[in-house]
Amino acid sequence: MNDVPKQMRPKRMRLMAFDMNTVGHIQQGLWTHPRDRSVEYRTLDHWTALARTLERGLFDGLFLADVLGVYDVHGGSPGPALRHGVQVPVNDPLMLVPAMAAATRHLGFGVTVNPSYDPPFPFARRMSTLDHLTGGRIGWNIVTGYLDSAARAMGLDRQVAHDDRYDVADDYMQVVYKLWEGSWADDAVRADRAAGVYADPARVRAVHHDGPHYRMDAVHLAEPSPQRTPVLFQAGSSGRGKRFAASHAECVFLNGQAVPALRAIVDDVRAGAIAAGRLPGDVLAFVGATLVIAETDALAQAKLADLRRYASGEGALVHASASMGIDLAAYGMDEPIQVVETQAIRSNLEAVARSAPVMTKRKLLDRMVLGSRQAPIVGSPATVADALQALTDGAGVDGFILSRTIVPDCVTDVVDLLVPELQRRGAYKEAYAPGTLRGKLFGRDRLPGTHPAAAARWA
Amino acid sequence: MNDVPKQMRPKRMRLMAFDMNTVGHIQQGLWTHPRDRSVEYRTLDHWTALARTLERGLFDGLFLADVLGVYDVHGGSPGPALRHGVQVPVNDPLMLVPAMAAATRHLGFGVTVNPSYDPPFPFARRMSTLDHLTGGRIGWNIVTGYLDSAARAMGLDRQVAHDDRYDVADDYMQVVYKLWEGSWADDAVRADRAAGVYADPARVRAVHHDGPHYRMDAVHLAEPSPQRTPVLFQAGSSGRGKRFAASHAECVFLNGQAVPALRAIVDDVRAGAIAAGRLPGDVLAFVGATLVIAETDALAQAKLADLRRYASGEGALVHASASMGIDLAAYGMDEPIQVVETQAIRSNLEAVARSAPVMTKRKLLDRMVLGSRQAPIVGSPATVADALQALTDGAGVDGFILSRTIVPDCVTDVVDLLVPELQRRGAYKEAYAPGTLRGKLFGRDRLPGTHPAAAARWA
Repeated sequence: MNDVPKQMRPKRMRLMAFDMNTVGHIQQGLWTHPRDRSVEYRTLDHWTALARTLERGLFDGLFLADVLGVYDVHGGSPGPALRHGVQVPVNDPLMLVPAMAAATRHLGFGVTVNPSYDPPFPFARRMSTLDHLTGGRIGWNIVTGYLDSAARAMGLDRQVAHDDRYDVADDYMQVVYKLWEGSWADDAVRADRAAGVYADPARVRAVHHDGPHYRMDAVHLAEPSPQRTPVLFQAGSSGRGKRFAASHAECVFLNGQAVPALRAIVDDVRAGAIAAGRLPGDVLAFVGATLVIAETDALAQAKLADLRRYASGEGALVHASASMGIDLAAYGMDEPIQVVETQAIRSNLEAVARSAPVMTKRKLLDRMVLGSRQAPIVGSPATVADALQALTDGAGVDGFILSRTIVPDCVTDVVDLLVPELQRRGAYKEAYAPGTLRGKLFGRDRLPGTHPAAAARWA
Repeated sequence: MNDVPKQMRPKRMRLMAFDMNTVGHIQQGLWTHPRDRSVEYRTLDHWTALARTLERGLFDGLFLADVLGVYDVHGGSPGPALRHGVQVPVNDPLMLVPAMAAATRHLGFGVTVNPSYDPPFPFARRMSTLDHLTGGRIGWNIVTGYLDSAARAMGLDRQVAHDDRYDVADDYMQVVYKLWEGSWADDAVRADRAAGVYADPARVRAVHHDGPHYRMDAVHLAEPSPQRTPVLFQAGSSGRGKRFAASHAECVFLNGQAVPALRAIVDDVRAGAIAAGRLPGDVLAFVGATLVIAETDALAQAKLADLRRYASGEGALVHASASMGIDLAAYGMDEPIQVVETQAIRSNLEAVARSAPVMTKRKLLDRMVLGSRQAPIVGSPATVADALQALTDGAGVDGFILSRTIVPDCVTDVVDLLVPELQRRGAYKEAYAPGTLRGKLFGRDRLPGTHPAAAARWA
């Protein structure tokens, strides 16, 4: 591509995989497909093999979702979620990272943790430990939760109200920034055997925090890790969620596929970051996508038809009920869904409220092609590449976070079919850049001075 | 050995390694030795290499210590601990396990977690996840902490009083037993693709707990793992600590080396378990030990002399001050140490109080041969084997938890020199038994019906 002027070269897109330490993640029911291996989620080999395949495909990262409760809104019981394996059982995502990191050299890992349910001091150490062990390949997807079942598991009666959860998270961020960025100076560790000095006490200080929700007086237990603060991901798309992301997020995780709508969202994200004192390049926009790829368009459509036989409509409704906080089991197929104020995912509620003329369960199910609301992009490598490039070139999207359909096939299809096509077009890297996850995404190991975490640093 | 009558065969001892995700663990200062690799604790390769060596030596497990605060009692500041690397920086121990598990097949992992600072619901899932990923090789060392610095890191003014900490832990144990043993029946998971049923909701139930310290209403998020409850380790040796261990512990971690004293402690542990309704074989007694081994006794003494050049007396006093909650920096060398009631490790205080006629800093330092109070066992493989067999045969000890001096040498010395000697004597296994950690230790994957956790099971 070197003889093509820079402005003529296509934008290079980034790919991440989206997965969860569970049987049924986004596309409900597909674990029943005879080729699917999701039921092996309990084994290390399952994950290390996935990590190696992703690294072969030069993926920037594996993004691991999580929930800390069960989906018990649909029918008022966790029964349907258990029966269909809808994000339950679900194991801890962090425990997958060290084994996958040992099996790879470049792949990054974005793990989902809800600050409400994890005290900041041990959490900060856990993430610093992962940043050390992975050589700076860890990211954190900050979520605020949406399940009363999680609150009851933590000894509460119900969850904190939607916007208040972000206020708690804002205070939490101040605490962990102080621990990660401010407790140890860059030159604190001397590891000087001859002098018998491991760290210089004059370059290590206690964090003092007395905020509206958190209080702390402590030295961070971990010495500075390659990235210090992990790469920060955020997916909030409510008004309050977007304000949070504008301040903190380095990678935003968006949904929606029509180019003009997506362009507006991406512009909105960048404008929010600029309003918060940050630079346009400080934030990358990733869009969630489900791909069904085969050698030809016809074969891809046949593959989709095969997958659809295994998708679970009820599983999808269980997931949607929990996301909205509305029990869809109580509705007839053509009864208009009443959108009421709940404490669940506001943007999901708003999407239903915006539907014209009204949303019904039948319409929802019609959209749930593969057991989720995320409509797949289906076709040959060229067809899928065209669709993705329309979003990167037309909507300013930086990359995609790809949901699993059936594993490992959905990943090997991307690696073996799509990636070579994108590379031929100059729309995908030929090799990893060296260094940390933040280094690969932004060309720097640490957060920039424009980020609010920078205020916690040593002068 | 098959032609020797069973009663003539020596008792087979078990070995575990004792380590910590930190620079200076027990023997303070030894990280400054030119051959020591402890400063590589931040890398996965350091730990996976250690795990492979331990497995080559047929170790039953690697026992990982932890503290969630800094040692700031000595001189009233964390400065000396930071300077000498006395258990600070210290990274999360759990994050080491998945990578080491992927590098081994049999080695068990005992991780230290203080229930006071880890909410039970996510903790239970974290341990279930590790039990799944390791194929049932996880153990939990239950500690109740002893540092005000940890309490301040968690937003408290000071730690809960010594005996009250065990009351909190007792309530916590009830919660996690219900999650691990009682939420999912053994036959709950069907994973039936044809029927589209992952779990049978009739065989999964919510845990309801309303105790003095914890409250919960939740389904455990993890399906039953190979061991369900991890193998339970406990090291409490105060009166209240021993009562806790008598109920809960499967492996007790003891200190002290004179045969009659140790015999009395081991008998006391077994009597406590029996009084709690358990069987004598339900509890294994491990003793902490530091070994310095070389081909001959003379070479071993020379090795000890070399190591001693790097031991840090001040580092050892920093550690001892925190363990006792007494600032030893305030004492002259020959001034009697005043034992006052503190909230730190009661048994350590009691040991000093029992000293006749009085304990002084000089006497403490004299005992700190290698930068800790644990006097090493030094000699040829035959000499060390004799000393260990005196404890297994004479004091009823089941095995040893071996502290590191310098790594990896201290481990390769055991594997290459001591283990063959023990095997020649018939005092050490020739191969691993298959199966889980509990299977290897007790011949069963799950806790026995005599353990209090069994009450949480499905009828």
